[in-house]
Amino acid sequence: MTVRPGTIAAHVDAERLWRRHMELAQHGATPNGGVDRQALSAEEIAARRTIVAWGEAIGLSASNDDAGNLFLRLAGTAPDLPPVMIGSHIDSQPTGGKFDGAFGVLAALESVEAIVASGARPRRPIDVVAWMNEEGSRFAPGMMGSAAFTGARKLADVLAVRDAAGVSVSDALAAVLAAEPQLPGRPLGTLVAAFVEAHIEQGPILEAEKRTIGVVTGIQGKRTFRVTVTGEENHAGTSPRSARRDALVSAVAMVHALQAAMWDAADVVRFTIGRFEVTPNAPSVVPARVVFSIDLRHPDTATLRDLGDRIPGLCAAAAGRCVVEVRELLHDPPLAFPAAIRDRIRAAAQDLGITWMDIPSGAGHDARYLHYHGPTGMIFIPCKDGLSHHEAESATRDDIAAGARVLAETAFGLSVAE
Amino acid sequence: MTVRPGTIAAHVDAERLWRRHMELAQHGATPNGGVDRQALSAEEIAARRTIVAWGEAIGLSASNDDAGNLFLRLAGTAPDLPPVMIGSHIDSQPTGGKFDGAFGVLAALESVEAIVASGARPRRPIDVVAWMNEEGSRFAPGMMGSAAFTGARKLADVLAVRDAAGVSVSDALAAVLAAEPQLPGRPLGTLVAAFVEAHIEQGPILEAEKRTIGVVTGIQGKRTFRVTVTGEENHAGTSPRSARRDALVSAVAMVHALQAAMWDAADVVRFTIGRFEVTPNAPSVVPARVVFSIDLRHPDTATLRDLGDRIPGLCAAAAGRCVVEVRELLHDPPLAFPAAIRDRIRAAAQDLGITWMDIPSGAGHDARYLHYHGPTGMIFIPCKDGLSHHEAESATRDDIAAGARVLAETAFGLSVAE
Repeated sequence: MTVRPGTIAAHVDAERLWRRHMELAQHGATPNGGVDRQALSAEEIAARRTIVAWGEAIGLSASNDDAGNLFLRLAGTAPDLPPVMIGSHIDSQPTGGKFDGAFGVLAALESVEAIVASGARPRRPIDVVAWMNEEGSRFAPGMMGSAAFTGARKLADVLAVRDAAGVSVSDALAAVLAAEPQLPGRPLGTLVAAFVEAHIEQGPILEAEKRTIGVVTGIQGKRTFRVTVTGEENHAGTSPRSARRDALVSAVAMVHALQAAMWDAADVVRFTIGRFEVTPNAPSVVPARVVFSIDLRHPDTATLRDLGDRIPGLCAAAAGRCVVEVRELLHDPPLAFPAAIRDRIRAAAQDLGITWMDIPSGAGHDARYLHYHGPTGMIFIPCKDGLSHHEAESATRDDIAAGARVLAETAFGLSVAE
Repeated sequence: MTVRPGTIAAHVDAERLWRRHMELAQHGATPNGGVDRQALSAEEIAARRTIVAWGEAIGLSASNDDAGNLFLRLAGTAPDLPPVMIGSHIDSQPTGGKFDGAFGVLAALESVEAIVASGARPRRPIDVVAWMNEEGSRFAPGMMGSAAFTGARKLADVLAVRDAAGVSVSDALAAVLAAEPQLPGRPLGTLVAAFVEAHIEQGPILEAEKRTIGVVTGIQGKRTFRVTVTGEENHAGTSPRSARRDALVSAVAMVHALQAAMWDAADVVRFTIGRFEVTPNAPSVVPARVVFSIDLRHPDTATLRDLGDRIPGLCAAAAGRCVVEVRELLHDPPLAFPAAIRDRIRAAAQDLGITWMDIPSGAGHDARYLHYHGPTGMIFIPCKDGLSHHEAESATRDDIAAGARVLAETAFGLSVAE
């Protein structure tokens, strides 16, 4: 079956797609216009029900797996071939926005709806997917569903994780699956012909460059560290500076030295200290302990390695009279998406007359794990002021529709490719 | 009645005094050898009962007032004269030690016990006092009982303060007073002939100088500030440094600049940032807000004023792309205890052959409020490594006894002075 470029995209309904974003955002809506729909919550259960209803209304077959990933299948003419997967996640940060994750799932749903409306028939099945717990804010770390699906993490390890209240993934997931008794299960780790994830950029580059589509070249590498600075508690009024072992003074000296050493003039390095906790944290007590996090990211493997390797030495040099321990928690090298997928996304944008540019992904995504499982790519659209993980997160109706059009063309093309 | 120097001190029983420290420390004992006996807690109620029992066993008359201050009176031959007061407090920090406060109350009790044992009769009554809530860790700020007694704060204002659990001082105090139904009440604000507070130094100077008694010259001044730095939450992986308004980066720059500007070569300035709180405090989120405390102390009025007045400007200059608000919470000027009291403490130490030195108090004490109510002084003894507000807080049996001897002689001298 030959379908001319643009045929599928013409059936993307921008109004419907926008309306669905607003409706989905009601599940976990916050007073400030954001979304609090954390993984495996009651709000997410309700959101999944809404997604399933929308999918079933156009004839998709819903299913889930033991990791809580949710699938909606559009049948292909060759039902035994591995599917093309498109999607993202619908869980959010506690003070998240309406678009992070949700856009990728709703654009995927809109894509198959456009295919159905066009009358075209995919060869391979197309699965719309919502991966379980991408954000990792309730159950850490994130990207749990895609990690379990691709075998990057064992399901048993994922199920044993507990949230701050002591609830396990296992128990929370049981409630989610119990709420979907009519859905058949499907196995983890099945073959995937291709995976394409659409997402807001979560950064300011597309907006600044006035491009609508980001053809994602890969995901930058990430290293994370936990730094523990131990000094000695003392009285703020009586202990002379020379007698103190002030953990905050030493930690601030470390942060100061790290900032000077890590950041580059080209502004490519992403260096963030997001967590900084003081003990006992009382105004008139010299701090005995500080624990802070380091999040370091870079698209180049060697640079990421070299910068990260300097961290323990920089901390030790600034420790003063305190003791410092630097523990590395994660080292994910950079990855590059295959040209075959990137070319197809780029061609779709060009055929539709939509502006595009190549762009690296600063954030991790479920596409990180799928990359090692099958040919994978990502499509970015701009978000206002680059804000994400924020209640004011925003994207325009036109950009959302453009992203869905490019995804729809790409997905259909992959489904019929030899 | 003439009593030769040293007569009273000879009746101080070092073993009894030590044993009482260990017994009192059982009320709120922590697994690490410290004390958690916060103001108006069940542990403090039990400790008060113990103190009253010890006092009544030697014939003292116990009473309390509407602010929860506890008194044990040794009658004088001129019962209508204002009393000499000696004492401190028995509440502790949540991870406090056995000696902060407790030493001052137990040394006072030992002093009157020595006077009784010596057969000498004071002219003025001598009141052993335990002031309510000196520490201010449960109900802030501290020195509540002495502030209410001296009129520095209105009783109604003190009673309205609530702890983190929402319990008011009024309700907690009602439970304390209900546990002492046999004790007569006494009015607030009565005249005081003199007040002398014995206390561990809470600093390292006496230990370093190998002196047993610190004749406290006064209490250094204190200014406290709350600094609020507001930036914008963003994604650690995607937002370039140039686009960030990172509240932690700005706050660290402020702390760095403040440390450089505040500390002096002579190491007299006490400058502490004890509280530092980051929002949202998540490893992969650029911080939107930091709130930190500043505790600045100095014995010189002009220096304290000038240094403190520089803080808002230093913070503003380091704010970068964030917004900073500096709010002053407290400005207590330095105070000097009167020579009459200091001379008497110094003379007592000299007569007893105990080493002494003049020393300023770095910490605030109930003596701060009593100073404006009647002639006031303080006696310090060394504490191990200068540690205080710490479970490892420690003082020697000999130093504790020496402090009690000097206090006993001083108190008796004041009680019979013209």
